[in-house]
Amino acid sequence: MSLITLTTDFGTKDHFVGAVKGAIYSELSDAKIVDITHEISPFNITETAYILKNSYKSFPEGTIHIIGVDSELSRDNKHIALELDNHFFVCPDNGLISMIASEIKPTKIVEINIHDRIESSFPVLDVFVQVACFIARGGNLTVIGKEIQEFKKLVEIQPKVNQAQNQIIGGVLYIDNYGNVITNISLKMFQDIGKGRRFKASARRYSFSKIFTKYNEVAGDSAHDSIQYDGSKLAIFNSAGFLEIAIYRSNLATVGGASTLLGLNYRDPITIEFYNDSKPDFTPLS
Amino acid sequence: MSLITLTTDFGTKDHFVGAVKGAIYSELSDAKIVDITHEISPFNITETAYILKNSYKSFPEGTIHIIGVDSELSRDNKHIALELDNHFFVCPDNGLISMIASEIKPTKIVEINIHDRIESSFPVLDVFVQVACFIARGGNLTVIGKEIQEFKKLVEIQPKVNQAQNQIIGGVLYIDNYGNVITNISLKMFQDIGKGRRFKASARRYSFSKIFTKYNEVAGDSAHDSIQYDGSKLAIFNSAGFLEIAIYRSNLATVGGASTLLGLNYRDPITIEFYNDSKPDFTPLS
Amino acid sequence: MSLITLTTDFGTKDHFVGAVKGAIYSELSDAKIVDITHEISPFNITETAYILKNSYKSFPEGTIHIIGVDSELSRDNKHIALELDNHFFVCPDNGLISMIASEIKPTKIVEINIHDRIESSFPVLDVFVQVACFIARGGNLTVIGKEIQEFKKLVEIQPKVNQAQNQIIGGVLYIDNYGNVITNISLKMFQDIGKGRRFKASARRYSFSKIFTKYNEVAGDSAHDSIQYDGSKLAIFNSAGFLEIAIYRSNLATVGGASTLLGLNYRDPITIEFYNDSKPDFTPLS
Repeated sequence: MSLITLTTDFGTKDHFVGAVKGAIYSELSDAKIVDITHEISPFNITETAYILKNSYKSFPEGTIHIIGVDSELSRDNKHIALELDNHFFVCPDNGLISMIASEIKPTKIVEINIHDRIESSFPVLDVFVQVACFIARGGNLTVIGKEIQEFKKLVEIQPKVNQAQNQIIGGVLYIDNYGNVITNISLKMFQDIGKGRRFKASARRYSFSKIFTKYNEVAGDSAHDSIQYDGSKLAIFNSAGFLEIAIYRSNLATVGGASTLLGLNYRDPITIEFYNDSKPDFTPLS
Repeated sequence: MSLITLTTDFGTKDHFVGAVKGAIYSELSDAKIVDITHEISPFNITETAYILKNSYKSFPEGTIHIIGVDSELSRDNKHIALELDNHFFVCPDNGLISMIASEIKPTKIVEINIHDRIESSFPVLDVFVQVACFIARGGNLTVIGKEIQEFKKLVEIQPKVNQAQNQIIGGVLYIDNYGNVITNISLKMFQDIGKGRRFKASARRYSFSKIFTKYNEVAGDSAHDSIQYDGSKLAIFNSAGFLEIAIYRSNLATVGGASTLLGLNYRDPITIEFYNDSKPDFTPLS
Repeated sequence: MSLITLTTDFGTKDHFVGAVKGAIYSELSDAKIVDITHEISPFNITETAYILKNSYKSFPEGTIHIIGVDSELSRDNKHIALELDNHFFVCPDNGLISMIASEIKPTKIVEINIHDRIESSFPVLDVFVQVACFIARGGNLTVIGKEIQEFKKLVEIQPKVNQAQNQIIGGVLYIDNYGNVITNISLKMFQDIGKGRRFKASARRYSFSKIFTKYNEVAGDSAHDSIQYDGSKLAIFNSAGFLEIAIYRSNLATVGGASTLLGLNYRDPITIEFYNDSKPDFTPLS
């Protein structure tokens, strides 16, 4: 049994996804194929990295992840296959891997070189499927490519910390299905810099003095009556470990979500200021 | 082989669905996972119930259904697992089950109590997957929760019948992919109250004196020339057994569907009046 | 192991797809079910044919393809099952097969006649699933229908060639997820008529003197700096073998795609003019 996941910007209407799945089953009749998503915004590497980073670890070790986003072969956009964190990835070398693997070094990377046999405007079908099935059958990466040491670096803009170590300036990384606004500020950074100090998180003209770990903490002790909190804005460290600005029980299609209601877009700044207890702060916190 | 279905409001772009599937395969490598839908309107329990009620019975007995809609744990929103109609459901106790199980009593219900080990803002991933896989391996419900007798009641608004038993006042329950408008009036109720009498069904300023059982009955005997009926409004008892107002061969994205063309929305009233043959009716029927 | 694909206009929100998959697993617990798409525009046979034609061949021989688009049974819309190119299709006889099988003759076609037992407004669930599972178990087509020789012909508008054999007038067949505009002019026709001559392809007020085989050929030799070509318009023979007008790295949701930016819609004309080298042409080519 081989598990192969697909993450693409193909959408789910065209024939692309069906053709790729058919080709996998033609090579490997007992494969299990899982769609991570096909709704990546066309050519968007940041989105691809955010989604993949937060899903691949749930899969069993040995899973093979095919990534079909901006994957056309060119001098600047090689095709690579790699082993990382006991998972395999077959993808273009467009910077994506550097965003996923910021803290984990790949065990082995190869530049795929089976292209002399294949000239294609649909490389996921014609190249990536072959490579993934080869790996699934236990093939060694070095047979389908030459080992390389480096992959393209493209690092998502990182939050900045000021010299006084009392301010983090981050930004919006992703907006999810509920309109929740996910920032690039991690719980770990918040704890490392904040060291338990009192703080204020600000996004445009809104500020937050608490960051929750569950959405319904916004309802405090009155969780038996939480419907009155629907539509409340809140800050949370989400299940992926990032600071998120959310609207409690939001619906983008009707009442709106944090992105529309608070006017927050991709790359907008989010700041956290920390206060030293010895220096009282009179700014009212919302 | 274990069959696990997913019904959520996660959408198909974010990492949520991929993460959940990965976690299932990590626990149970031979699972079969079926998406019922991930397009539930955020937090909408009525929609969830309508979709689940009309799909779960098609699955083999023993199938495990995970429902991830408004599933964050709180004092008012317990997590439950139950056996009902020889199927298993893992879901929040938010009233959903009462809408699905209006006529069938669950064999066993437990309140899940594995949360002391897990604090989570993503309970479908962290709790429901574990519970579902435990059931799939043949585990007894009472191991993962304490048996309870009651679940939260939340009954979709039911059609009303007047005292004279000649009028049913129902409402719009759901609008489907074609813009067809599904009401809460069942074929059974129509037959029980109508007893074969002549009738008029009305929705806003439109009325219907016939209710079909197939869409193309609108074309009558001229089924060989049915394209001229495209765009005709009609009433039908749909495959789920409910009265539906439809537009023949509608397309929401282009010409519109019954919801847009007739101006019918969720919860709008639909009435059926029955006539006694002894008392002739002169109202022209459309 | 039986592979069954689904191509429908059901959308992915309603209960339809879930119900169909449940019914298949109920009949055939070891089936593999692959969604080709459920996003066909309601009742659109041309789209169905384009998508199916470009995906079915990737699947292993013996795969069974269920097509649920405009499938309600009527005197004019029989249900058929057929073997074609070593694949099986279960579908309505609405002209679809003639568009898929323009060059391949089906080995066997039967008109399904199990309907005396089933009266249904959801024939994919009630009829097609049964037929597909019967075929999957090795059943002979003639058991579930009577053999017929003809199926309904409905041919997508074909490109025209003028008498002088120096002009092809084609049209827009399909618009894909990236907004790329796919025409009905095949590479084969282009080569057969063009015979290597110089040419100009025109769509509205835009013209192209080159047709690529990979998208990034638009960047020419400067593939190391291709981002500056984002948004360039180009013509390509796509992976399906048809002339396509594209915008390099387009995004319909943000900057737009070829369909929106060049104003090209379904059925709009696209022409190719060929020049004889002996008769020089002074028209500047874009």
